[in-house]
Amino acid sequence: MPSPDLLDRFAAIVGTGNALRTDADVEPYLTEGRGLYRGATPLVLKPGSTEEVATIMKLASETKTPIVPVSGGTGLVGGGVPRAEGQDVVLSLARLNRIRDVDPVANVMAVDGGVILADVQKAAEEVDRLFPLSLGSEGSCRVAGNLSTNAGGTAVLAYGNMRQLCLGLEVVLPTGEIWDGMRRLKKDNTGYDLRDLFIGAEGTLGVITGAVLKLFPRPRGHQVAFVGLKSPADALKLFEFAAGLCGTALTGFELMPRIGVEFTTKHIPNVRDPLSSVHPWYALIDISTSDAEETAERMIGTLLETAYERGLIDDAVVASSEAQRKAIWHMRESMSDAQKPEGGSIKHDVSVPVSQVPDFMAEAEKAVLAAVPGARICAFGHLGDGNIHYNISQPVGADKAAYLARWREVNAIVHGIVLKHGGSISAEHGIGQLKRDELASIRSPIEMELMHRIKSAFDPAGIMNPGKVLK
Amino acid sequence: MPSPDLLDRFAAIVGTGNALRTDADVEPYLTEGRGLYRGATPLVLKPGSTEEVATIMKLASETKTPIVPVSGGTGLVGGGVPRAEGQDVVLSLARLNRIRDVDPVANVMAVDGGVILADVQKAAEEVDRLFPLSLGSEGSCRVAGNLSTNAGGTAVLAYGNMRQLCLGLEVVLPTGEIWDGMRRLKKDNTGYDLRDLFIGAEGTLGVITGAVLKLFPRPRGHQVAFVGLKSPADALKLFEFAAGLCGTALTGFELMPRIGVEFTTKHIPNVRDPLSSVHPWYALIDISTSDAEETAERMIGTLLETAYERGLIDDAVVASSEAQRKAIWHMRESMSDAQKPEGGSIKHDVSVPVSQVPDFMAEAEKAVLAAVPGARICAFGHLGDGNIHYNISQPVGADKAAYLARWREVNAIVHGIVLKHGGSISAEHGIGQLKRDELASIRSPIEMELMHRIKSAFDPAGIMNPGKVLK
Repeated sequence: MPSPDLLDRFAAIVGTGNALRTDADVEPYLTEGRGLYRGATPLVLKPGSTEEVATIMKLASETKTPIVPVSGGTGLVGGGVPRAEGQDVVLSLARLNRIRDVDPVANVMAVDGGVILADVQKAAEEVDRLFPLSLGSEGSCRVAGNLSTNAGGTAVLAYGNMRQLCLGLEVVLPTGEIWDGMRRLKKDNTGYDLRDLFIGAEGTLGVITGAVLKLFPRPRGHQVAFVGLKSPADALKLFEFAAGLCGTALTGFELMPRIGVEFTTKHIPNVRDPLSSVHPWYALIDISTSDAEETAERMIGTLLETAYERGLIDDAVVASSEAQRKAIWHMRESMSDAQKPEGGSIKHDVSVPVSQVPDFMAEAEKAVLAAVPGARICAFGHLGDGNIHYNISQPVGADKAAYLARWREVNAIVHGIVLKHGGSISAEHGIGQLKRDELASIRSPIEMELMHRIKSAFDPAGIMNPGKVLK
Repeated sequence: MPSPDLLDRFAAIVGTGNALRTDADVEPYLTEGRGLYRGATPLVLKPGSTEEVATIMKLASETKTPIVPVSGGTGLVGGGVPRAEGQDVVLSLARLNRIRDVDPVANVMAVDGGVILADVQKAAEEVDRLFPLSLGSEGSCRVAGNLSTNAGGTAVLAYGNMRQLCLGLEVVLPTGEIWDGMRRLKKDNTGYDLRDLFIGAEGTLGVITGAVLKLFPRPRGHQVAFVGLKSPADALKLFEFAAGLCGTALTGFELMPRIGVEFTTKHIPNVRDPLSSVHPWYALIDISTSDAEETAERMIGTLLETAYERGLIDDAVVASSEAQRKAIWHMRESMSDAQKPEGGSIKHDVSVPVSQVPDFMAEAEKAVLAAVPGARICAFGHLGDGNIHYNISQPVGADKAAYLARWREVNAIVHGIVLKHGGSISAEHGIGQLKRDELASIRSPIEMELMHRIKSAFDPAGIMNPGKVLK
């Protein structure tokens, strides 16, 4: 445990006002949204500059004090929660929240690591540009966390994950040195790709204190359709056709089950079923075009007409206003929250090759229902990325705690089918604590060995977010 | 030097017919296109399987024999040439040239590392898909080399570099273990990004024996325009407008100087100036649309009309057939070759933030002409990526050898201006031997240190393409 004297030395770096030590003050840093983890810490530091972060890491390195970097605290796998024993000092990036500069000609923006995602989106909008990363938590998550988890979200189909949206980084290394990789180049082949190593490392290789982000032209045309269909197989056929027709103008293709529509209309205020008829499955199709609204209109028209003709969809509605578009997206984005009043939900964030989504869904449903009769599968997500949030609400009337106690058992069933299809047990949420041991069990020894060697090369003292990703 | 006995042991792994040892047989592996390097080797191995590569690396590891992996041999920085002392065994990937499978639904293709790029493009076309990487050397370069150098080319603007086109890798490590990272997932956040570490590592961390590549819908509409304009500044304004109008449908935007058009029309058979009027600068604009030819036609029409109105272009022609489109691209792609009959050319492959291209061009021209009066600057390239091939032909009548002897001196001048603008001294060709020492001199000590630590972590014996990228 860090001594009181050592804690004072850390506190002195940021000033007493930015060093939280009372139980009440540190409380918000001990848990995360789903309540799966509860940690402890004697100290939360809120540095105000990259240099302060560097000074903290130097002291941590000298004294072998474990540091847990925290960005927006919206993670879902325990990556930003200190360990329960209270030995970890928390380093919050919340005060590093400046937008450093915006260059709409070069289509780049430089930001501090702690800037809130919604502020990035807004700053891009102000210069008539788009920063496409979009997630449910965009009002509170911060860029360093988006980078450290290689965040995905709803626009990956057209724009890629956070990895694809970042040109450069500034990172404070575990030893306290600052790596200035704030490059703003589209092409730069000069040595090993350090940037992409820090991206997705979940704060185990360094603290991301700055980033250069890519901006895009703002789409001129935007259309959203909500369609009812028979099966994931038909949804896949529709996706394929849409991808061929629209190319990168296809900015979203989300699959949802009937039960998800029922949960959201029942539990989320102001959500209504956009269709009057009932269907076993639904897809949300989002099209954004660069040149003109008419192109988007023509695309969505051609798409739905052809889909009807081919019998791929049974009903469809095209949003006729921005408010309607938002309402349809809101239904999709509140699907996870809508499960809460229905009791316990065992969750999976998996991906398989796009072409194998229907098989995966069928096999997983069969296996899950065999293990947990009456379980209500609310599997929805980014079909176009092969990424399904395979969430399973408890049977009606079941005991919540007893149901949730089967989390690992159900995970093993679903992940087994995912791996059979060459899939990933964490498509976008990362490893953190939640999937750390499982990762080690499914990856080859040589892959784990390489990761451990990288960890040792960057963090020889083992003080950087210990126990996350790797044991 | 490897002993004859050791060479026999290596040869036995691949069979005598696939182990080249005579001077005549190894000759093609000792040089590369520009003739900047000449190496030596006692043995070229041509393994026929990943397992053979692994066996070679195991033996190399045990006996500390340096190995130089060679893909298509079309590199430009000495990365695939053995060292001059003859201690390196060459490992050619030429026989690992199978396309393993093609999945047009998931839009992926799995290939051996040694498959030729043009064969990948063709296999994609056969299932109505596009593999967008396109380079002058596509008929002979191979995928492992494209990956190891993170190749760029002419379609980066819309589709990204090779890094963005690859989902998974199979790599034989320096120690002989095989890392099976042949994932075909669009989203997979499970641990450190090993893939992107091997990509761009120029064969210094392992041998890429397989890859999963992304496919794209084939564009339905395609338009190419060639415009005459006054300056790089006007070209930049035109690019900005085109990017906003066309979004990702803008698949190419190449800048060319008058002298480049003169060199190509003079020296390359069948190349004609597409415009009857003469202009100081030219741009090639390539638009590919997913939905219909009409969209591409409308875009190019709007683009050129507006550009005239704003006084950004002085003349323009739109190619009216596939043959004309190819002819315009051919002019651009033969611009480097067209310099050869003009004597020595000192070359740079640099990038700066897109918004700074005009300033860079003006400053570099001034500095270069001050140092080498009469030098003929033929700077052309991917304006949309900020990537300029800043090639400088010798003054008319100058002594070629004396001119080329000033290579490093001129490099220092141009690279100094590049770095002032936050640019890269190697935008797409990599480091190899050519820029190794310069890299070490311009990067921070901590960045070089991290790269060396990674190198040691992956290649403890230091046998993997030694002397390339890092000293």
